[in-house]
Amino acid sequence: MSESPTIVRSIKDTARDVRGKILKRQTPTMAFPIRDLSNVKYRPSTGYFEMKGNHKVRTLTYNTVKTFAQTLRMMSLAKSLIETDDIATKRDAYYQSKAWAEARFDEQDESDTVMDDIEAYFEVNREQLGFIPDEHGGAVAGELVVLDRDQDTGRKLRIDCTKFGSGAYAVPHTVEHLGFETKAKFILAIETAGLFQRLVKHNFWRHADCILVSMGGVPTRACRRFIRRLAEERKIPVYAFVDGDPYGYCNIYRTLKVGSGNAAHINRFFCVPNARFLGVTPYDIADFDLQDATHPLKDVDIKRAEDALKNDPFFKHHKPWQDALHKMMKMKVRIEQQAFAKHSLNYVIEKYLPEKLKHTDKFLP
Amino acid sequence: MSESPTIVRSIKDTARDVRGKILKRQTPTMAFPIRDLSNVKYRPSTGYFEMKGNHKVRTLTYNTVKTFAQTLRMMSLAKSLIETDDIATKRDAYYQSKAWAEARFDEQDESDTVMDDIEAYFEVNREQLGFIPDEHGGAVAGELVVLDRDQDTGRKLRIDCTKFGSGAYAVPHTVEHLGFETKAKFILAIETAGLFQRLVKHNFWRHADCILVSMGGVPTRACRRFIRRLAEERKIPVYAFVDGDPYGYCNIYRTLKVGSGNAAHINRFFCVPNARFLGVTPYDIADFDLQDATHPLKDVDIKRAEDALKNDPFFKHHKPWQDALHKMMKMKVRIEQQAFAKHSLNYVIEKYLPEKLKHTDKFLP
Repeated sequence: MSESPTIVRSIKDTARDVRGKILKRQTPTMAFPIRDLSNVKYRPSTGYFEMKGNHKVRTLTYNTVKTFAQTLRMMSLAKSLIETDDIATKRDAYYQSKAWAEARFDEQDESDTVMDDIEAYFEVNREQLGFIPDEHGGAVAGELVVLDRDQDTGRKLRIDCTKFGSGAYAVPHTVEHLGFETKAKFILAIETAGLFQRLVKHNFWRHADCILVSMGGVPTRACRRFIRRLAEERKIPVYAFVDGDPYGYCNIYRTLKVGSGNAAHINRFFCVPNARFLGVTPYDIADFDLQDATHPLKDVDIKRAEDALKNDPFFKHHKPWQDALHKMMKMKVRIEQQAFAKHSLNYVIEKYLPEKLKHTDKFLP
Repeated sequence: MSESPTIVRSIKDTARDVRGKILKRQTPTMAFPIRDLSNVKYRPSTGYFEMKGNHKVRTLTYNTVKTFAQTLRMMSLAKSLIETDDIATKRDAYYQSKAWAEARFDEQDESDTVMDDIEAYFEVNREQLGFIPDEHGGAVAGELVVLDRDQDTGRKLRIDCTKFGSGAYAVPHTVEHLGFETKAKFILAIETAGLFQRLVKHNFWRHADCILVSMGGVPTRACRRFIRRLAEERKIPVYAFVDGDPYGYCNIYRTLKVGSGNAAHINRFFCVPNARFLGVTPYDIADFDLQDATHPLKDVDIKRAEDALKNDPFFKHHKPWQDALHKMMKMKVRIEQQAFAKHSLNYVIEKYLPEKLKHTDKFLP
């Protein structure tokens, strides 16, 4: 956490400003970026959803005194987490507030909102404030050494992800402190744990010289941040391998690549702008003879695809994605990444992936 | 998979029997154990839900020919998985059937049922047939070396779970082939990933000389099987640390310890009969001054607890559990394992766990 001293300084500056105004009998204010889709734009050059810059101002008044106090308390908790190199989940923070007397939170929704406000205010991600998600960070196997350290002794640890056999490395909930050594040619980000396990079982990473990451559905913050840091620092391309359906395209892949609409203030940390889409595409259905392994699109699929074409700045920007979504709507079917098992269990390893990897220029953006 | 030759032999015997009858123009039959709660009993001496022994007989007739053929096909797939040391998820198996002409499955529900029937028929767990779950197996950190091997080279791998820093070992989807080296005093099975991360962050395993396992809610098959094999082979006690609510008691802990009602044919592989309940108990609320960090029981909580008291053979057998559930219903509140954060973030590490671990004899059964 190399930025920690800067963040602590910012927290102190803000607190000092508020205190100073109160002592001078002025009204303290804090301006928070607005966190919703109305305040979001997609800039292809940076590669993620950004905020347009609109703010809401919180002024200390009779009506806002509780929220104001809670905001300062939460900032204080973040400061202490950073200074003691400790962590807290959102739930932990909520429970901590039970000792804040009148500033206690009644529901976790309220403390989550204040935490999100602070994260946006300081323009950091909340992991940098010591707040960690209560969810797994994905699993990793392949040509990668993760550098960590023992919390007690400070001794450096080299975690060799080629040496886990049928198992894998479970990514921690915060990854800011990790280092990486690798000569892998690419990172393959995989939607389902089942397919990840198949590729691990057959050491696909060794034959393809790559790093395998199991996202387990929509990738968590820690998982996205892990891929992003690894890809950026070691300059490795990222290929996404997810189900060929609107959820896979518009939720999993879109979130991995550009982030999500209601978290625009942190997308710059969590998106993976260099990610490209390996498959499964609607074109693969004919190319790999998968017609009889498809499933009909459901109403919810169609609605999701139509929404993306109409409202999502990412899909509105990329013509090849519009074509792919239209193709899928016309075919009226979806295809899963496990559907290759129709041919044979290891068709995906022996045919599909090698074939696709020969033409990375054809991947969707 | 040391039992593999036996299983292949059983599959062949069954197939030979069916074929023999057909050639003799007799009617082939297969008798499958009935898999529901009506066919379940709880035997404290073995420590898990068992089947009572009722069977349903599937006879090859005009009406059953498709299911019969599918059953034989699925057996054949299992045989080939074992012989080639390969794996398939339930979804993979469903897709494989697309190449089975008239015996193809239209929905995965159907193929899952046939797979469960076969598992019960051969009295093995389906991982032994090469079928793996499409879900994670939990995360592990602490005083444990997992023994695995490289799939390509056969070289032995020693995976040292003390050397992952802030990360962890992700348990593979099937664990039958793993070996273990450990001198740990106990296994702590933890409900939430958030609390697991806190204990990992502070190397709790080193100070308490234990192995930490993150279950992430109701433990998956692989996670339970991992804990069971480890506990049994190395003769280590297992302590469960979950939320103090009916879901934690009646779903998470009950499933970990004795298995589930509708999977009685495999509980003997997946339950952890020596597990004991560390907390959070309703008594802890007063003992650790947590009153103001509780939440009111919801209707669904009350219904779940009442159901358990009335219908669940496990709770009906254990008086201390009945007392605990009644106590909770009387207090009308539930308590989460993260609630200790009310005192301080590391109260759980510095006070609660050490205090409880001094009196393991007081753990609930």
